[in-house]
This record gives sequence, C-alpha cells and structure tokens, in this order.
Amino acid sequence: MSPQMLATPDLALVPGLRAAGVHCGLKKDRLDLAILWSPDPRTTAAAVFTQNAFAAAPVHVSRQHVAGGQVRAIVVNSGNANACTGRSGLRDALEMARATAGHLGLAPDEVLVCSTGRIGIPMQMDKLRAGIDACAARIQAGEGDGHEAAAAILTTDSGPKEASRTFMVEGHACTLSGIAKGAGMIHPNMATMLAFLATDVQVAPAHLQAALAHAVDRSFNQISVDGDESTNDTCAILATAAAPVTLHPDHPAWPVFQATLTGLCQELARRIAADGEGATRLLRVVVEGGATDADARGAARAVCASNLVKCAMHGSDPNWGRIVSAMGQSDAAIDPLAVDIWIGNPQQAVQVLAAGEPQDSLAEARACLDGAEVLVRVHLHQGAGAGEAWGCDMTEEYVTFNAQYTT
Amino acid sequence: MSPQMLATPDLALVPGLRAAGVHCGLKKDRLDLAILWSPDPRTTAAAVFTQNAFAAAPVHVSRQHVAGGQVRAIVVNSGNANACTGRSGLRDALEMARATAGHLGLAPDEVLVCSTGRIGIPMQMDKLRAGIDACAARIQAGEGDGHEAAAAILTTDSGPKEASRTFMVEGHACTLSGIAKGAGMIHPNMATMLAFLATDVQVAPAHLQAALAHAVDRSFNQISVDGDESTNDTCAILATAAAPVTLHPDHPAWPVFQATLTGLCQELARRIAADGEGATRLLRVVVEGGATDADARGAARAVCASNLVKCAMHGSDPNWGRIVSAMGQSDAAIDPLAVDIWIGNPQQAVQVLAAGEPQDSLAEARACLDGAEVLVRVHLHQGAGAGEAWGCDMTEEYVTFNAQYTT
Repeated sequence: MSPQMLATPDLALVPGLRAAGVHCGLKKDRLDLAILWSPDPRTTAAAVFTQNAFAAAPVHVSRQHVAGGQVRAIVVNSGNANACTGRSGLRDALEMARATAGHLGLAPDEVLVCSTGRIGIPMQMDKLRAGIDACAARIQAGEGDGHEAAAAILTTDSGPKEASRTFMVEGHACTLSGIAKGAGMIHPNMATMLAFLATDVQVAPAHLQAALAHAVDRSFNQISVDGDESTNDTCAILATAAAPVTLHPDHPAWPVFQATLTGLCQELARRIAADGEGATRLLRVVVEGGATDADARGAARAVCASNLVKCAMHGSDPNWGRIVSAMGQSDAAIDPLAVDIWIGNPQQAVQVLAAGEPQDSLAEARACLDGAEVLVRVHLHQGAGAGEAWGCDMTEEYVTFNAQYTT
Repeated sequence: MSPQMLATPDLALVPGLRAAGVHCGLKKDRLDLAILWSPDPRTTAAAVFTQNAFAAAPVHVSRQHVAGGQVRAIVVNSGNANACTGRSGLRDALEMARATAGHLGLAPDEVLVCSTGRIGIPMQMDKLRAGIDACAARIQAGEGDGHEAAAAILTTDSGPKEASRTFMVEGHACTLSGIAKGAGMIHPNMATMLAFLATDVQVAPAHLQAALAHAVDRSFNQISVDGDESTNDTCAILATAAAPVTLHPDHPAWPVFQATLTGLCQELARRIAADGEGATRLLRVVVEGGATDADARGAARAVCASNLVKCAMHGSDPNWGRIVSAMGQSDAAIDPLAVDIWIGNPQQAVQVLAAGEPQDSLAEARACLDGAEVLVRVHLHQGAGAGEAWGCDMTEEYVTFNAQYTT
C-alpha cells in the first residue's frame, strides 16, 4: 500500500509528538517561537545543517547536540537568526537549550536550537526567556498544535508549509509529518531554510540520519531561489517511537519509509521554491540518462540555479541555449551530441534539442510556457541516473525588493 | 622600471603583429570578422578555454591547434557562436581555419578559431568564406589595425575594450597589448568572453601557457556578471618574437613580464565586469589574510557572484550579512570570529565587522556607496593569501532584458 497524503496536515498528527507556538515579541505581532517535544525516552533524532562557514550559533549548538544521539525537543525562533553575533550568540543559543530543557525535564543537550531572521543583531534574551516559559507551559498543558509551530517559524513566507503522510508497516498505519519555511536567503538579511519532521516509527539514530540525508539530497538540496545558501539552514526529524514498529535498513518496509520521507521532503521543497521572492512560476527540471544519480541531480540543479534560465522562464522563452550552458557548468558527464531536451509544462512538453541537434520547434515550445509550472526534461544518454530539481523564475520584483531594502 | 600604460592602446602596436577586421554580414551593419596574424615563424602562442561541457565547435578546434604548439594566426567572428550546432559546427570551424591558413601560407592547425554570438544557429559559411577572403586580403595589403579587430569581436558590449602596456627588458621597450569582449553570458543566446593578447617578446610555448594561466586565474576567472559561464570563452596570446628578447621563468625580467600580463588582463577583466548587462556600478572585492591566494580569490569571487550582494550594491546597502553568507559558501578556510570587513569606495571604506563583531557604522558605510565603484575589503586573518574579484550590481534592467528577449 503506497503512502497516503493527508488533506489537512499537522505535525501534531504524529502520535507522541507535541507542538506549540507563541508570540514573544521578536516579530511585531505574529507567532515567533515554537517548541516541538517528544516525551518518550526512546525518541531518536537526526538532522542535517548548512555547510556555510558562517554557520550561525544555533547551528553549532545543534550539531553538537544531535551528535550526542539523544534529542527529544526542538526550540526555534523567527525574527532573529542569531548569526554573526560573535561570542554572545553562542551563549544565547546555549541558554535557549538550557531554558527549554529545564521546563521539559531534559538535559540541555537533548534540545536542538534553531533561529531564523535577521543577521548580525544581538538576541533579545529577555523576550526569548519569557517566550520559552510561555511556550513550554502551553505544550505541557496539552495546548497548541503543529499549525502554531508552522506559523511561528515563518519569516517572509507567503504562508505556512505543512505536509503529512501515512504509510503501512506490519499492519500499522504510521505517520510522517513536516513543516518548513523560507526559500534559501531570499530575503534581505533574512537567513534560513528550516524544516522539521516527525514520525512515530522507531528508528535507530544512525539509520534515521542516513534516511534523512538521502531524502534531503533529493529535495531541499535540489532547490534554488537565488543560489545563496544561508547561515542557518537546518532540517531535523524526531522519531517518537509511539508506533509499535521498529524500522531499519534490512526491514522489508524500509524502502516504503525512505520513499515516504523523500516524497514529503520533496513536497515541502517544491513549496519553498514556488514561494521564492518575486517568483511567478515554479520551474521543475527532470534529468534522466545521467551516468549516475548524482550527475543527474547536479545537472538539474545547475539549470535551476542559472539566472539566465530563470529570466528566460519569466519571459516564457524556451531558450535551450541557456539550459545547455548551465548544465555544461555542472560536473555531470555530458556528450553534447547525445543530449535531448524538452521544454513545456506538466501536460505538454516539446522537444527542442534531439541528439545535440536544434529542432525547429521554438514557437510550439513557447506556447507551452504560460502556466504556473514550467517543466524542463533532459535525457543525457550516459546511463541510468535520474534526478530532479526545483526553482522559480527571476523577476524584476526580486531585484527591486532586494535592492530597495536597506539595513 | 615599472610597466607603462599607453593612452591610445592598439593590438597592432605590438611589433610583428598584424590585425584587421571586416563586415561579412553575420551582424547587420557592424564589423563581424577579424584576423590576427604574426608572420614570423618563431611566433609562439598559448590559450585557455571554457571548461563548459558544451564547449562550442571552435573551442574544440582551437584546443587541438594550440596543443600542437605552433600557432601564428587567429580568425574570429561575432554574430554566431557556432555552439550547439551539432556535427556541422565542427566542419564549419575547421573550414574557417583552413580558409584563413590558405591565404596566409600556414597549415590549418597554425590557426585558432573563435566565434561569439547566438547559440544553436548554423554558420552562414558563404558569408564567412567571403569575409575571410576580404579580411586576409586587407591584412596582407598592410591595411587594418587592432581597433578594427577590437570592434569586430563585439556583440552587445557598449564599446571596444583595448589595453596596451610597455615594459623594459634588457634595455628594450617591449610591448603587450590586448582586446576583449563580452561579460560572461550576459546576453540572451549570446555566448562568450573573448580576449586576444599579443607581445613582441620571445617565449617558449610552455612558459607562455603558464604565464597566461597565472594571469587569467587572477583576472578573467575572477569576474562575474551573472554566474553563467559561456560555451565559447577563450583567452589567447601570440608572442611575435619581433623583439630581440627571449624570456623564461629564470630570466630576471620574468616577474615584470608576468606582472604586466596579469595587470593587463585585470584591466580588461574589470572593463568587462563594469560593462555587465544593466550594470550601473563596478563591484571590487579585495580579500587579504587568506590561508592561501586561492582561498582569498575564491572568497572574493563568491562575493561578486552573489545575487543578493549584487542587489544590495544596486540599492547602496552596506549589507555585510550577505557578504559573509556568500563567502561562507566558498571553500576558503574561515574563522567567523576573526573576520574584518570594510565597505565603501576607492576613496573611503568603513569597517562594518571587526573580528566577527558587528560595528555600529551602517549609516556611515551607506554614505560611501553612491559612486560608480563599490569596494569591499575583507581580512580573513588566516594567513598571507590575497585575491581580488570584480563584478557589478544587479538591476531590474538585467531581468527585464533577459526575460523580454525571445528566441
């Protein structure tokens, strides 16, 4: 039985997972602090983080804590990224973990800390302390839900991004839910893509980490809004152990779990790409026939990251010259005289390059490019590798917004 | 005695180098075909090319020819890049070399071929053949000069880019001149940065290649307009051997030659960056204190390539958060708590980050950002490595132009 997508997703639908959000005053009037908590001591966690050398203070703290293998809660604020905040930033991130842990009866290193918002501004710790007190009280009183958390992590997103799926293991309906925010560093001085996932299956930390890394490589690492990697990017998962099911890579249901996890991450990633600053359409690039999956993913990502491709998509221009030029900059093995390219939309795509020879089909292709989603399909004819990436068009609004803002 | 910049540069100022340009009809009414020729059989050559997997047909041909070690002429056209032209493209590029060689009494593999212009359009070989006939006749009649060649290689440049310098070796005034065009793939379907240099000193091909690679790594490889590497990028140099001077890496004047070559390439590279599509200001990023020169160059390049930095420069915004985030994506060794950053202009720069701590100086920094050149200076405090990069601001005009054009 294949995974079921739930029409009204909620992180708190995952048995054993509790979530709440409050307004503590870092943002003007919207929710800006959330806590996720899985009380069961069998809970496991995994996380992947930004590779940026200027990784923010909470990233440093969370990296250490998840390496300890025992994490049961996540505290996250929006409005301030706690990035480039010098030595005081590290103290503040640690204090956020300590305060949350104190309320929930955990050790500080059982709490992950995430922050998103402006860079280079000291944390207003008085507001954060009061917010953590209030949010912990709310979650312990059985109040709050995943929607609050999904709202509290937003910065300039047009709305919350939530997804839930169920999948069957040994006759049990297990649940996987997630929330996400942001779109790279699309916003002036706003840092961060954040995603938080939860499932009720039991998975050992090392296996959970491997499954998460696999999913992130095929989802959040395959989106590009403006090519700028943030200082705070974090994707974390809690496995609450509430379901009477223990999964591991040799379990017959492991492929279903992995596919469900990858699919849910892809759904959230697509929504981040579509919500890119100034974007008017989603760009989906599918590459097949790569020498390896990694080659295909790299080629797809290069197309989504090209400013010239993004501008062409804005202008409904089937400009395959920009597509080949962008792919040619990736590390993928490519024989230019073997490449096929189709451009269009999910319903209809037109071949514009066949075995490296231009086709006389540009007018036909252009007619397919007026919708909300542009599809570029490429066959490299180098092997069986496949990969996808998602991006958005580049608009004058993107430039105006990012130029007119002043610090 | 340090190199002298010449106020009225001309490629043909280099003794032994002959140049001419004609209009053959690939472009509507401007010059579009040039030949450079050094008749002396002692002439040596070197070249570096795009790393793009979709390298155009002329790049494949020229790579082979320069590897033969004996090149004395370059034929170059604008208006058509001969890129993604399938198997016929290779035949056409070879025919351009053959036709040029025939007129000049050379073997075909003594001629480099370069093309720039639209991608995916078959070469109009009848026009090119007639153009090569006319241009070769002109150059053999002693007509033409470097200005014609500088004009004939342009596509959407706002004007020609020429530079000349003299430097003293063993009491002889030697000459180095260059011409360049383009700015990455800034133009819709227009491919290519091209640069052609000439000097009258005698240099063995292997040494000339090493000197050129050193210079290009510090100049043309350090500019970014939109991050898109073209299918046709080529930088070639001819050493005409007209001066009674033979240089090699152990010669006391070699550092002067290398510095002159690097400086001239940087001058041309800066002018390409400043001429970026839609650009209103030049961005210069100087990184010192890198663990290595390569680290410093990589960090500088990452800043110049960041869309968010480029938008901030357009808005006169001293947004150092975007600068650190961009540097953090490079491979450079960075200790965030050691980094200093200054933002301003060539006359005045204001420190905005000191040992990783934000400074209260943004208003002061913003007041420095209204000129034609923005200077960002970074000290990483990791070693003695230094590097520079050049870019331009990103404007709404860039997006409009690249979106509204349709193939």
